Amino acid sequence: MSALIGLDWGTSNLRAMLMDGSGKVLESRSRPWGIRQLPDGGYAGALAAITAGWPDLPRLAAGMVGSRNGWREVPYLNLPATVGDVALALHRGIDGASLAIVPGLRNPRGPDVMRGEETQVIGLIATHQALTATVVLPGTHSKWVSVRDGNMVDFRTMMTGELYGLLRQYSILGAGIATDTTAFDQPAFVDGVRSARDSGAAGALSRLFATRARMLDGALAPASVPDYLSGLLIGEEFRAMRAAELLTTDAPIWLIGDEALCARYRLAASEFSIIAAPAIHDTAAAGLWHLANAAGLLGSPLLNAFSVSGVRP
Amino acid sequence: MSALIGLDWGTSNLRAMLMDGSGKVLESRSRPWGIRQLPDGGYAGALAAITAGWPDLPRLAAGMVGSRNGWREVPYLNLPATVGDVALALHRGIDGASLAIVPGLRNPRGPDVMRGEETQVIGLIATHQALTATVVLPGTHSKWVSVRDGNMVDFRTMMTGELYGLLRQYSILGAGIATDTTAFDQPAFVDGVRSARDSGAAGALSRLFATRARMLDGALAPASVPDYLSGLLIGEEFRAMRAAELLTTDAPIWLIGDEALCARYRLAASEFSIIAAPAIHDTAAAGLWHLANAAGLLGSPLLNAFSVSGVRP
Repeated sequence: MSALIGLDWGTSNLRAMLMDGSGKVLESRSRPWGIRQLPDGGYAGALAAITAGWPDLPRLAAGMVGSRNGWREVPYLNLPATVGDVALALHRGIDGASLAIVPGLRNPRGPDVMRGEETQVIGLIATHQALTATVVLPGTHSKWVSVRDGNMVDFRTMMTGELYGLLRQYSILGAGIATDTTAFDQPAFVDGVRSARDSGAAGALSRLFATRARMLDGALAPASVPDYLSGLLIGEEFRAMRAAELLTTDAPIWLIGDEALCARYRLAASEFSIIAAPAIHDTAAAGLWHLANAAGLLGSPLLNAFSVSGVRP
Repeated sequence: MSALIGLDWGTSNLRAMLMDGSGKVLESRSRPWGIRQLPDGGYAGALAAITAGWPDLPRLAAGMVGSRNGWREVPYLNLPATVGDVALALHRGIDGASLAIVPGLRNPRGPDVMRGEETQVIGLIATHQALTATVVLPGTHSKWVSVRDGNMVDFRTMMTGELYGLLRQYSILGAGIATDTTAFDQPAFVDGVRSARDSGAAGALSRLFATRARMLDGALAPASVPDYLSGLLIGEEFRAMRAAELLTTDAPIWLIGDEALCARYRLAASEFSIIAAPAIHDTAAAGLWHLANAAGLLGSPLLNAFSVSGVRP
């Protein structure tokens, strides 16, 4: 029997998952209704439309929906925070009391923030008892999360995806290079990773212009520049996160995210003599269900009918 | 008596300087005729127009005019190269034999390249016997040049100005911030420099997203973000160049370039406990004259009349 509607509500996308009492996803729907491009009817309209026909269940959302520009600003929870702390800090009572939002996390060191990724990491923790790992969520703003004995103790954001996009589209290095290349140029990517790895404490920004010099030398074909840049920036993540002690030899790496992107990170990891675990595509549903369960939010259509009227059994 | 026409011919600008036999600039003209925006008549037309009315003298040009997309591709000269080596490698015989172009320099370490800045550095070396210094030319692509006993022995490019522009204009950090702020926010700039300086071997890219977190915290006002980012990226130059041993304690720093930009670098230097010499606005004329003199290029209108007809005295 269905027990929860989980929502992964980001900047550009809204995903709704109907889950049963064991956390199994019974049905999943996705719409391009991120907080920057809501349909007519706004947040409430989007939520009603994407859950149309589903039972009237408790709903738990994670992601940018809880940001300052989202439906309701939910304050960040500061590290150190256990999974139980996050469950206790769910922001309830939205949309006629049926919606709760997961708080993002704030790392006073940095400072740094995340919204949405904490739920993915919690999904991983929930299914791996006393996990100790560095969890990497590659993307526009890649997150490196240090998990010790099942708790998130540190994290750092690297703006790798965004920097790559800017350099690729607008910079002297990438602008003007045809965008119709399709195949992954693995040798160029690995060259970029190694250049970052071998840049020492100076770091990859001190090697960025070498991309141009290599092109002028004829050592790097223009068509290879995008994957070389990708390797340089992803390699810089590993180099910098090792220096910042987010990447350590005593904890394995787990990757969560898009398969092709995670494959690049696994390649980069091997250049740093690290074996990353096979990537996991998505743990949002597991995280949402785990938090809802810990917070006593799981309901049934019947129970929920009571809760909507204000009477909880 | 005039003896040389020096040309500083870059991507977006062309500057012509009429100089006498001692290197003194008698007249200077500037037009927005960089190699990307030539007037009708192309290179030869631009050169004729900007030198209209001047005596028929030898002409020496430095900058992107000698690049692959310039008037004539002049091969880079590899380091190590003395000033005499550069003078010997002037590429002569362009535009009816009256124009020579200074070769750019290539650093096999990196690899890295420069075109135009070598002439600025030579201008500084020419007026400072046996100079030992780190010469910094801030800009879109900042150059850090290690000079030892009057010779350029190493250099590195940091794409600071270009990265700043991209982050300011397009990124989540800078996009949407009003562009009409005018006053220099020195405290924000210094905060950025310190953040980069204190980032250790991880480097400033690991602190970039903290800009966002600080804004969300209310600790950094949106209007302060541009100068904070400027400080972070310029601070990263100093941090990285110190790690790469371009910045050392045994050689002073000389700055060549735009006054306001150099003032930022002097501020950043002081945060790294380094006293930079007062900035020099421009040494291109001195460099061009020194190279022309060393190459025996200096002429007079009369001598040049002979050389044009193929008969050198």
